[in-house]
Amino acid sequence: MTDPPDITYLFEPRSVAVVGASHDESKVGYKVLENIVKGGFTGDVYPVNPKGGEILGLPVFERVEDLPEGVDIAFIIIPGKYVFEAVKSCAERKAKFLPIISSGFSEVGNIEEEHKMVEYAREHGMRILGPNIFGIYSAGVSLNGTFGPPHILKGNVAIVTQSGALGGSMIGKTAVENIGLSTMVSVGNKADIGEPDLLRYLMKSDTARVIFMYIEGVKEGEELITVLSEATRVKPVIVIKSGRSKRGAMAAASHTGSLAGQDEVFDAIMKQCGVLRAESLQEAFNWCKFLASAPLPKGNATVIVTNGGGLGVMATDACEKYDVSLYDDTEILREAFSDATPDFGSTKNPVDITGQATPQHYESALRAALDHESIDSIIALYCETAVFDLEAFVELMRQYHQKALQVGKPLLFSLLGGGRIEECIRSLKNEGVPVYADVYECVSCLGALYQYYHHSLAEEELPEEYDIDYSTINTVVEKATAENRYFLLSHEAQAIMEAARIPTPQSYIARTLDQAVAFAEKVGYPVVMKVVSRDIIHKSDAGGVALDLENKEELMDAYQAILYNSRQYNPHARIDGIEVAEMVEKGTETIVGARIDQAFGPVVMFGLGGIYVEVMKDVSFRAFPLNREEVLTMMKETRSYPLLLGVRGEEKKDIESVQDAIMKVGAVIHNCALITDIEVNPLVVYERGVKAVDVRILLKREKGGDINE
Amino acid sequence: MTDPPDITYLFEPRSVAVVGASHDESKVGYKVLENIVKGGFTGDVYPVNPKGGEILGLPVFERVEDLPEGVDIAFIIIPGKYVFEAVKSCAERKAKFLPIISSGFSEVGNIEEEHKMVEYAREHGMRILGPNIFGIYSAGVSLNGTFGPPHILKGNVAIVTQSGALGGSMIGKTAVENIGLSTMVSVGNKADIGEPDLLRYLMKSDTARVIFMYIEGVKEGEELITVLSEATRVKPVIVIKSGRSKRGAMAAASHTGSLAGQDEVFDAIMKQCGVLRAESLQEAFNWCKFLASAPLPKGNATVIVTNGGGLGVMATDACEKYDVSLYDDTEILREAFSDATPDFGSTKNPVDITGQATPQHYESALRAALDHESIDSIIALYCETAVFDLEAFVELMRQYHQKALQVGKPLLFSLLGGGRIEECIRSLKNEGVPVYADVYECVSCLGALYQYYHHSLAEEELPEEYDIDYSTINTVVEKATAENRYFLLSHEAQAIMEAARIPTPQSYIARTLDQAVAFAEKVGYPVVMKVVSRDIIHKSDAGGVALDLENKEELMDAYQAILYNSRQYNPHARIDGIEVAEMVEKGTETIVGARIDQAFGPVVMFGLGGIYVEVMKDVSFRAFPLNREEVLTMMKETRSYPLLLGVRGEEKKDIESVQDAIMKVGAVIHNCALITDIEVNPLVVYERGVKAVDVRILLKREKGGDINE
Repeated sequence: MTDPPDITYLFEPRSVAVVGASHDESKVGYKVLENIVKGGFTGDVYPVNPKGGEILGLPVFERVEDLPEGVDIAFIIIPGKYVFEAVKSCAERKAKFLPIISSGFSEVGNIEEEHKMVEYAREHGMRILGPNIFGIYSAGVSLNGTFGPPHILKGNVAIVTQSGALGGSMIGKTAVENIGLSTMVSVGNKADIGEPDLLRYLMKSDTARVIFMYIEGVKEGEELITVLSEATRVKPVIVIKSGRSKRGAMAAASHTGSLAGQDEVFDAIMKQCGVLRAESLQEAFNWCKFLASAPLPKGNATVIVTNGGGLGVMATDACEKYDVSLYDDTEILREAFSDATPDFGSTKNPVDITGQATPQHYESALRAALDHESIDSIIALYCETAVFDLEAFVELMRQYHQKALQVGKPLLFSLLGGGRIEECIRSLKNEGVPVYADVYECVSCLGALYQYYHHSLAEEELPEEYDIDYSTINTVVEKATAENRYFLLSHEAQAIMEAARIPTPQSYIARTLDQAVAFAEKVGYPVVMKVVSRDIIHKSDAGGVALDLENKEELMDAYQAILYNSRQYNPHARIDGIEVAEMVEKGTETIVGARIDQAFGPVVMFGLGGIYVEVMKDVSFRAFPLNREEVLTMMKETRSYPLLLGVRGEEKKDIESVQDAIMKVGAVIHNCALITDIEVNPLVVYERGVKAVDVRILLKREKGGDINE
Repeated sequence: MTDPPDITYLFEPRSVAVVGASHDESKVGYKVLENIVKGGFTGDVYPVNPKGGEILGLPVFERVEDLPEGVDIAFIIIPGKYVFEAVKSCAERKAKFLPIISSGFSEVGNIEEEHKMVEYAREHGMRILGPNIFGIYSAGVSLNGTFGPPHILKGNVAIVTQSGALGGSMIGKTAVENIGLSTMVSVGNKADIGEPDLLRYLMKSDTARVIFMYIEGVKEGEELITVLSEATRVKPVIVIKSGRSKRGAMAAASHTGSLAGQDEVFDAIMKQCGVLRAESLQEAFNWCKFLASAPLPKGNATVIVTNGGGLGVMATDACEKYDVSLYDDTEILREAFSDATPDFGSTKNPVDITGQATPQHYESALRAALDHESIDSIIALYCETAVFDLEAFVELMRQYHQKALQVGKPLLFSLLGGGRIEECIRSLKNEGVPVYADVYECVSCLGALYQYYHHSLAEEELPEEYDIDYSTINTVVEKATAENRYFLLSHEAQAIMEAARIPTPQSYIARTLDQAVAFAEKVGYPVVMKVVSRDIIHKSDAGGVALDLENKEELMDAYQAILYNSRQYNPHARIDGIEVAEMVEKGTETIVGARIDQAFGPVVMFGLGGIYVEVMKDVSFRAFPLNREEVLTMMKETRSYPLLLGVRGEEKKDIESVQDAIMKVGAVIHNCALITDIEVNPLVVYERGVKAVDVRILLKREKGGDINE
């Protein structure tokens, strides 16, 4: 295998070939060439078509074999069945990147051909974009290698889209919204190049200030997490993931996994990576536009200035919804805004400069807000009033937009009114002033900026090292797989917990009555006994469990009863012994789990025990890499988390030990390739310490397989 | 007191006076007159100004006293301090309605003047709109009695707004959105005329097809519930209530002086009344426009037709969000859409007619959807593609919009693309075709229509009669108030439960040890004992409680201990006896409550016991009038409701008895004016029956007062 080419040449090619350039103006093969030529691509262009001749004034190569060696990009736009041949020819000419616009591969079930093609390409030092894409646009070299609209507005938003159709129409839509693009890449089937490769370039690109990705399905999930986490430290990344609803929900093996639904996991991971997740395209575009030019605030203090109380109240509601903090110091607010506010107005936040406000009052308020050190960002609202110098106000918005950029404070406007107002909004928007027709839309943008700001403040925590005895774990797991088991017996699961230094109830397996008595003495009465048998999964149903045994007599009776019941239940059951364990003290029950997610690799899970998870679906998730801080954030996301803080006179529970337990099950699943699911249910939490009472561990079904398949 | 005038004359006046009409064109008093005159009001107009003369060609009356008798409306636009005098003069001339545009009343704390003025007006057969309003517009008589924009688009949306400033700018905004108005009323301080009065007219008005209300604070809440419930059976009512958030509620309170109240309660009540609650103005306007012309669907089956898979998936997500059901019969879908769909497309819903679709394919799909009986509504999506006859498509949308209206199926479009697409959207919107630039916006409108449709299907249930012994209840309550108590003792509360036929644990008050023994025998061991004393509220702290007494000996010891402990705890405590009660069996704990809400009168409440309410705030509310069906819906709104259905092998609980208990505490609070709060916590629910274990009842603090004050 040859080294893959430098990804830079996909975005900054010096030469491109169009394999399948067409003489017929109605064909995609013509359209792409036309866009490249008329878009003013700065490098060399080589059309390829067996008919030869000339297209758009360029001489046409009859065969790929005739191309100069080492073209950076060879677009492939020929019927699907000829594509592989063309890929081979490109390899001969040492082409670097092959955006395959042709379709007819995995999207219609033709997975094998696609796979072979990618393998061949990579063996020959080439990389494939697609297939089934609508092309690539790169502003730096003026390359419009798409069959979309011919004119693309240059700017600093980079878009990566999985849907080609959407990509094409997004180009038009962004132009209408006056959002300039630095890059637009359609990834289609993602047979080779995926989001991580592209993000790695885009996060370093100076021209891309914001990255927006439209995702339908995740490939290379672990890689994506790593790169997204890096990218969001450098610039905002906005994601739309469609298929939030039931569709595409993952079939999960473990009971709690099935609660997840794919979207909760995806959502948790995006949060963890600091990604801004938009719901609708309109929201995503609004955020792109605002974040591409807004200054990062220096703090949380937001002030609302309004000439209408009603709008102010709605903006306040929106601030709560989008997690924007309103500044609260009434002293300073009065000092700053009393000049702008008549007596019957209010200098409290929202600052109500009243319906009588003139542009001069707005100016006074905006000047004060920009000048005042304690104020970090400003939302200015205007309700159309009968007597108001709108032109002066427009000029003011223009000026203060510039001033706010200079002092580094986000300043947003929202105006409500008729045709003249609509006209103002349109023209100011076109100039790049953040002005909106709806307060919720306005505040949503500031909310996205603050979400990014807060993520940028969070310090990266170094991963902790836990003292885990992996050699014991591997021995236990290997023994089970050798026996063709895909689950661990409970004492094996317990051994794993012990190896991970997660406390479990003291417990021993007795093979005789005498042993049972001796173990009970060691553990201390009261004790619990359970049958140990791989053939009896539902122990209680089998009468194989006895609780709260208070003394030797009770224990002896129970021992006989369990054996008798188990044999009655299943005469062929192999009974490995009887487990004698301490009675677990009451505490707060939690569920802690870890499993291999098909898309994202290892994920951990937390919830309060029993009903909270089963009925109320109150669980939270995180993917790797993990740290204790992130685990705590995850725990706090559950609605029932306050139970751990102590309610109804109870003491606060040992939250740190839960964090440790989650980190540890995570580490085990991360490091032991054969384990696919760990569920501790319950992990009982005390004022000091935790106990893993019931542990279920599943293993990979077969080599290369997956329990979820 | 004279009879109030017929509200019709507020909306359809034959004559209006403008008290405070001004010669100065910059004044509100000029602006209102100008809007009335130039707006083409069909009746007589009488300007009043001490200077006399002529304004806008009309002779000016120098004094109110000179007006002809019985004008339907007299606008009052003079400084606040002169308003009351003008009101008196209007009374003399037997004016009917007084929209008081002037401010300076309760909104600045001048409550008394406002109150006196209203009282005076009503005594003299007049009604006041406002004060502190921006006027009234009524399309039927071409009355623009506002100081807002001069031109108002006539149509069939009625708007009632509490904020004047917002009202003015909404006129402009609706014009921009091409939303025609039938009426626009500013209610301001709502000193006299409020939403209920207006709704009562608007629900019967033929020209108002949709009613939109902007509310900041609720007055006359019980009345509002009654009228809203009636109105939503006739036409859609959309409400924005600002001050949803805590902070927003505070801002609203300082801005209008109105109590926002708890948003959860407001929200529950709006749902109960069948009101469509919008969040942002943009959403409200979208709904208004769509609902004013859309046909009501005949069923739930919605089909999405799209030329782009990505858009289709997003629309599917949006359908789940807005509760729009997608049609699922693949057989019928194939039959209907195979003509429109190429092989590599999909006839499953969303129907993907692919990027190669022409307007003819759309036509085939739309025709099939309109023809097919099983399909009730259609969402058609279009992603801009390179080769597509957009003009033909626009014509098609226009035609099918009309056809869909004829066959009575909602048909909505959402288009994504560049400038040409934007242009299409704008012009089709202006023609009234429901076409959107964002799928979420589009589906949100259909969701609102379906919410209205489902409400219109729900049959009204007749209120049930419960056999409640009110005379006992009144006796107990009167005794407590006679003792100046604002709470009931536990045996009193129990007596109320018994009078309401809500089962309680058997219990008796013993005054001697012998009595206690006898009662215990009657109740049956094990029993519970508690001290009964108005001076000991925290019984457990006082050592005044003994649980699980299994026999006579234990009971006798406990009796002495309780008396001793209580005397130690508070030597001066009056001890009324010792309660002997049955030990309550374990069941599912719920909380059932009823209280007098400041805004809406009696409301009932439900939640699962203990932590679910305390930590997870998992409660639901309803106001009166109540029925059992509505109560069940309320119970189902809690996330923990499934616990009553039986989880982890438990049997289903007696949900009907919980419904009964809620209906009964509701009836008690509704019918007993002195009771302000009832909380049954827990109401233990069994497989059969319930038991009200702990009941707290609060009474009105003093005549005319309120416990919350």
